[in-house]
Amino acid sequence: MRTVLRGIESKTVYPAKEQRYRGENGELLEVVSDLTSFNRSPAAWKEHFDEQKEKPAFIRYKDVLLPDLPEKCITSLSEGDTPLYPATKAMRDYFGVEKLELKHEGMNPTLSFKDRGMVAGVSWARFIGADVVACASTGDTSAAMAAYAACAGIKAVVLLPEGNISFEQYSQPIAAGAITLGLDTDFDGCMELIQKITAKHRGIYLLNSMNSFRIEGQKAIGIEALHQRNWQVPDWFIIPVGNAGNVSALAKGIRELYELGIINRLPRIAGVQTKAASPLYNSYKNGWAGLVPITAKKTKASAIQIGNPVSFKKAVRELKAFNGVVEAASEEEIMDAKAVVDASGISICPNSATAMAGLRKLAKAGIIRKTDSVVAILTAHGAKFSQATVEYHRAANRFANKPKALRADVAAIEKALGL
Amino acid sequence: MRTVLRGIESKTVYPAKEQRYRGENGELLEVVSDLTSFNRSPAAWKEHFDEQKEKPAFIRYKDVLLPDLPEKCITSLSEGDTPLYPATKAMRDYFGVEKLELKHEGMNPTLSFKDRGMVAGVSWARFIGADVVACASTGDTSAAMAAYAACAGIKAVVLLPEGNISFEQYSQPIAAGAITLGLDTDFDGCMELIQKITAKHRGIYLLNSMNSFRIEGQKAIGIEALHQRNWQVPDWFIIPVGNAGNVSALAKGIRELYELGIINRLPRIAGVQTKAASPLYNSYKNGWAGLVPITAKKTKASAIQIGNPVSFKKAVRELKAFNGVVEAASEEEIMDAKAVVDASGISICPNSATAMAGLRKLAKAGIIRKTDSVVAILTAHGAKFSQATVEYHRAANRFANKPKALRADVAAIEKALGL
Repeated sequence: MRTVLRGIESKTVYPAKEQRYRGENGELLEVVSDLTSFNRSPAAWKEHFDEQKEKPAFIRYKDVLLPDLPEKCITSLSEGDTPLYPATKAMRDYFGVEKLELKHEGMNPTLSFKDRGMVAGVSWARFIGADVVACASTGDTSAAMAAYAACAGIKAVVLLPEGNISFEQYSQPIAAGAITLGLDTDFDGCMELIQKITAKHRGIYLLNSMNSFRIEGQKAIGIEALHQRNWQVPDWFIIPVGNAGNVSALAKGIRELYELGIINRLPRIAGVQTKAASPLYNSYKNGWAGLVPITAKKTKASAIQIGNPVSFKKAVRELKAFNGVVEAASEEEIMDAKAVVDASGISICPNSATAMAGLRKLAKAGIIRKTDSVVAILTAHGAKFSQATVEYHRAANRFANKPKALRADVAAIEKALGL
Repeated sequence: MRTVLRGIESKTVYPAKEQRYRGENGELLEVVSDLTSFNRSPAAWKEHFDEQKEKPAFIRYKDVLLPDLPEKCITSLSEGDTPLYPATKAMRDYFGVEKLELKHEGMNPTLSFKDRGMVAGVSWARFIGADVVACASTGDTSAAMAAYAACAGIKAVVLLPEGNISFEQYSQPIAAGAITLGLDTDFDGCMELIQKITAKHRGIYLLNSMNSFRIEGQKAIGIEALHQRNWQVPDWFIIPVGNAGNVSALAKGIRELYELGIINRLPRIAGVQTKAASPLYNSYKNGWAGLVPITAKKTKASAIQIGNPVSFKKAVRELKAFNGVVEAASEEEIMDAKAVVDASGISICPNSATAMAGLRKLAKAGIIRKTDSVVAILTAHGAKFSQATVEYHRAANRFANKPKALRADVAAIEKALGL
């Protein structure tokens, strides 16, 4: 085996195949793989990835994600190979940077980046012989886990904060056959309960981002974006932050490429939170002070309505290593940013819009320069958030495009069109 | 120019760049391109397509779609390259065929196959200099047109049957900045009105499936599926039928490949309608009798709730040439079929499920044999139809997976899980 699990503080090592989410001392774990054992030069790595172009992204990048996972254990739904869109002029103007690209992870099978994690997590579950998987979720995680578990023929259990996820997200685990339990608490409450359940009932395998193998899958987002850019590193990656697993994955993947010599410098990373749930932002503003959990307020960016981010320590460590920053955006800033991106034909979720709103603020503040190259990670498709979208456009908002109800006749239509 | 517009009955020829949706005698038109002028052998064609693998599907197949369209006019949102999923065992058992693959067109930017048409239609609109585009829609067409028009910087107008499309679909053209008019009529009423409006106001370019250039783009679905199968032709293609544009496009594309020698035989094609709107099925059952328009009844398969299909004559002509059949499925058959596919982790819309329900009926009737190879075209993503999905699972339906609302405590969860 090339891979071990390692405590992020004590550096204590545990066997990769052990079903373990925290170290003996309670610390977070991370997957550490000895990639030098492949004995590949940077050029050979690039050639290897190019040769695998036809394969699903997870298999293409498997050697730097989960090198020990046998291919026969992989459950793929053709996730990945998501578009890296160049920004339109309207976007460049509004967000204040000239070289902007958008990596749209909403173009995955369950319409969010979580598929990148679940192809890894569910495949790993098969590898270690788990036959029930479980998670707490703000919506996207449960959709992805349920779909991959269904495809793998593994039973799935999801805990959701009843009434705090979009209706579309609610429909997804139900349709995919997961046992779907809506609890009268918030995400942090669900997260606490699923940890208790999976600690007590060892036959149930936890697939939240505390599961370090799932996080390895999400590294593919940044790696694929860099591959699409022919390994040219942008000045910045921008990413929304909730439970802080994805920003940790992004950074870890890029850092490992750098260590292998595949890229020749590190980008900076900006994490963006909603003001309704910004414990990482608070830490950053206080010189990376320790986590002070809060009760997250209701926000349109429901996927990141998280007051006690599980991967906080990983995120802080990575952001420091990347000379990173953290920003926070208001509801108005988030929904205006969403409207601007949507109006270019690229449909995004409010969580993705949080990252975009943060970009605008950082560009205005001069922290991101107008001439910097920026890759923004869009985390889910807008079609999962139709309620938030229609509410915005029906009300008197800055970029509202109000629909009209009309009588079915030519004159009425002509009048509405000013013909 | 390699391309002309030609009347499907009189064979009258019109210049391709003329803004024209019907012949002088009112007949439907089709795009006819002289593909022999490329002077490519079947092997050279295949090599050409292989060489373009890295490009968006529309560009890869452009020579057999819209050969005269300059690349600089193309507005692409990275549509296409959708998965061709092998069916799970549960699907093969339920649908009654052993060799089943699912081509998931829901994995397009606006989550339906209409993106394949709109990359062609909107790009052609740019080519001929149109600056306003319009359509009537049951939801997916308007979502796609609005997104591509937004990306191209062209103004978009959509007419929708108010209250007869899913909320997710309703949100899409609004978000993409289209002028969105909900009319107190059904789709057929909207279709009639948009034809009147675009006939009267020539500055508005019609992008419904009456627009033959849009249909050319949709040919890519079948072509790409055959390319993914290494040009091995399946025994059957199964496809849902509403306005009958997509079945016409599928057949035309495959027929042209056959004429070029790229494939060595024709598959059979089965079109499937909802019983709530089955004028093509009625025609088929009456020895391909002429169209008798009906008033479509309300159906979960709202995208094909169409009683007066515009492309009826094209569809009949093509289905005859492919030794085709037409089937019709009930609401219960449709939603049960959706539940079976969804439960494999592949999320589909009720319209896609109509095709799947038809497959089951045709297999049961022995028209499609158990050993026949079948490719089913799934037309949109299930996440656009969360209301229909949740309603199904909340009620006492055959494959219902009922969600539960619970108190947030360990004991309640253990009880629900039988632990």
